[in-house]
Amino acid sequence: MREKKYINKIGLVCVGSELFSHVANSNIHIATRVLESHGFEVNHNAIVHDNFENIIKAVEFCLINGDAVIISGGLGPTFDDITREAIAQLVNKRLIFSMDAWHEIQERFRERKISIIPDRNKKQAMIIEGAKRLINKLGTAPGMMLDYMEKPIFLLPGPPVEFEEMLISCVVPELLENTCSASTQRYIRKGFGIAGEPEAVVEEKTDILREEMVCAGGEWTILALPYLIELWLKLPVSKQSLFDNVEFKLKEIFKDSFLGANGISIPESLLILMKNKKLSCCFAESCTGGLAGHLITEIPGSSYCFNGSIVAYSNKLKKKFLKVPKTVLKKYGAVSEETAIAMAKGARKYGRTDVSLAITGIAGPSGATAEKPVGLVWMAVAITNSKFKTRKFYFAGKRTTIKLRAALAGIDFLRRVIMESRL
Amino acid sequence: MREKKYINKIGLVCVGSELFSHVANSNIHIATRVLESHGFEVNHNAIVHDNFENIIKAVEFCLINGDAVIISGGLGPTFDDITREAIAQLVNKRLIFSMDAWHEIQERFRERKISIIPDRNKKQAMIIEGAKRLINKLGTAPGMMLDYMEKPIFLLPGPPVEFEEMLISCVVPELLENTCSASTQRYIRKGFGIAGEPEAVVEEKTDILREEMVCAGGEWTILALPYLIELWLKLPVSKQSLFDNVEFKLKEIFKDSFLGANGISIPESLLILMKNKKLSCCFAESCTGGLAGHLITEIPGSSYCFNGSIVAYSNKLKKKFLKVPKTVLKKYGAVSEETAIAMAKGARKYGRTDVSLAITGIAGPSGATAEKPVGLVWMAVAITNSKFKTRKFYFAGKRTTIKLRAALAGIDFLRRVIMESRL
Repeated sequence: MREKKYINKIGLVCVGSELFSHVANSNIHIATRVLESHGFEVNHNAIVHDNFENIIKAVEFCLINGDAVIISGGLGPTFDDITREAIAQLVNKRLIFSMDAWHEIQERFRERKISIIPDRNKKQAMIIEGAKRLINKLGTAPGMMLDYMEKPIFLLPGPPVEFEEMLISCVVPELLENTCSASTQRYIRKGFGIAGEPEAVVEEKTDILREEMVCAGGEWTILALPYLIELWLKLPVSKQSLFDNVEFKLKEIFKDSFLGANGISIPESLLILMKNKKLSCCFAESCTGGLAGHLITEIPGSSYCFNGSIVAYSNKLKKKFLKVPKTVLKKYGAVSEETAIAMAKGARKYGRTDVSLAITGIAGPSGATAEKPVGLVWMAVAITNSKFKTRKFYFAGKRTTIKLRAALAGIDFLRRVIMESRL
Repeated sequence: MREKKYINKIGLVCVGSELFSHVANSNIHIATRVLESHGFEVNHNAIVHDNFENIIKAVEFCLINGDAVIISGGLGPTFDDITREAIAQLVNKRLIFSMDAWHEIQERFRERKISIIPDRNKKQAMIIEGAKRLINKLGTAPGMMLDYMEKPIFLLPGPPVEFEEMLISCVVPELLENTCSASTQRYIRKGFGIAGEPEAVVEEKTDILREEMVCAGGEWTILALPYLIELWLKLPVSKQSLFDNVEFKLKEIFKDSFLGANGISIPESLLILMKNKKLSCCFAESCTGGLAGHLITEIPGSSYCFNGSIVAYSNKLKKKFLKVPKTVLKKYGAVSEETAIAMAKGARKYGRTDVSLAITGIAGPSGATAEKPVGLVWMAVAITNSKFKTRKFYFAGKRTTIKLRAALAGIDFLRRVIMESRL
């Protein structure tokens, strides 16, 4: 990119992930969020097999309909990784072995304490003639940047962590430095999270706000995520001061349900609150099987507040570790308000934490009775030795969905109880 | 579709899921598996915003490069659902209110015990002139089928359960009935799982087998998933008896690392083994934060073998619940072979299970020392009161990746120990 170009619309082509679409999914998500937060628009996402013709056609399509294209995947060392070759053919250039790239690949292996480097990894050191090599700090496949039809093409590795790191550290700076899109033509997108409210309620309560924003040239999208509604607003850069008004109004409308801006998650929101209040917690999980603990510990630094989770999936473990009385289990059943309280009490007492959360329910498909359907979940939060808050939920969906909603609703319930109790 | 057409390559366009790509992800997965199992090829997947121009361009692209197109999403009742309108414009037809469609929509509301039907749902009863209406048994948005450029276009709703049901009950029968592709041109795809082996090793060891299959007209793909390599083989229907040979040979090559066919996961593989041997287990997790327990309990019926997991994230909980001696933690540290053994021992003893698995490591980004880098994970499996197996791992990547690899490697380690110990 010698001259500055107008770049606004960017296409994304994910290669070779048609079966493992989890990778494509992550990379589309990452690209949309990262690029749109810098004012670019991801206008087309294509997912294609490891197939020469399909890769080339998808890239050409994105170039015709946009200003730049980012390709993820197909840069691995195996026979079916053909992105390098396909793009070299498209731009009619040779592949050249780069000694610098090979040194970096060897370095990655050394970092992983692997002494014998497979010869076939040399394939990853082949760079398209004239392309700029982009350094991959987290994996073996180097990225590349080249021009075609006077538009930039970026080749990035498929694994989402590598893709994201290189998108932020290599692609965005190149785009910002070498493009001349007037800032008035750029947009910024921001997301606001609202926990535990139905989509229709959120839509209704924000009708007026939405109309105001649309009149101001904004684009307003509602996303229903598990136990979370995200309102995404895209505004011209010139109108970005409106974001603060929107945040203020949403807080006013949704009170404790409002989590904040920029895609803050329910677990992050709990951790920030607990850190501010210097509180420690532990969980007692049954039907969620460890998912609540997993979601909290995805966040770096969570050990500051989170001590652990007793996943007492069987009644035996509920008795052994949490000292849930046999009589309670017998009289009320494992999925009951009483058992939830006993679990929370046990976790708080034996884990010696300030507060605790217990989740017990029926994730299905089996285990339901006439009074206790699949999706019934009881939760309890222990605030002191004798003070508890409980809540009953009915979650729709299949096992996986019920587990996820229950874990998030539990974490959100603990957050609300801490806010209300003014601990 | 009056005359029989040759249909092999099908494009998929997912509308309006650029931020909530989970939906697109599911639908791509569903479409690929369903259509490829019937011998069709999904050659392009596009994901576009709720944007007139982008929808039309993506559909045209798929029609030019394929024999049919399936569109998912954008058939809802809200302001941002515009797929109907975009396709009507593309094919230059009007939208006509269908009383039959409206009756069905009302029926769906009655089934959900909702008596007041929002007026905005009338939008969903608008059908493109000349299109065949496809009945949606699970949701309010009817599907449509129409011809353009002498190729079929299918409009299906976005929610994955509705999409899948209509794909199977409406689209596949239409495609099979109205197309003339000879069955010899059809393919079947099967996947085989190999746990814990590097991608390059799997490729090398299957070089000869791959060549045999390619000579037989097959397509061979390697997918590197977390701690799992999947070999996917696509064979002409006429050659499907070869799948058994492949399975037999892979078992011979990879022994205990071979999990089985058809996308069997590592946790499923452990549960099948434990059920056969009538064994019970529990986990003691530290760095994985509950993820190992979560992965096991994603599988219905896991409670048969899995009793629970003590997520002892802090040292306090390691001492309180697992009785890890203070001296062990002080002398060797939380991430050590000795602590892993003590955790496994405590979980097995106090959980009263046949076997137990302990995982302790450094997920990062902080917590590393000169001798203990980020990614170091110690595991222990307790087989009897005094018999243990331990293993040290180094995992590359960021926190999320390290957690996922450690949880899967732990579950796989337990599986291998059970197989070797002949319990």
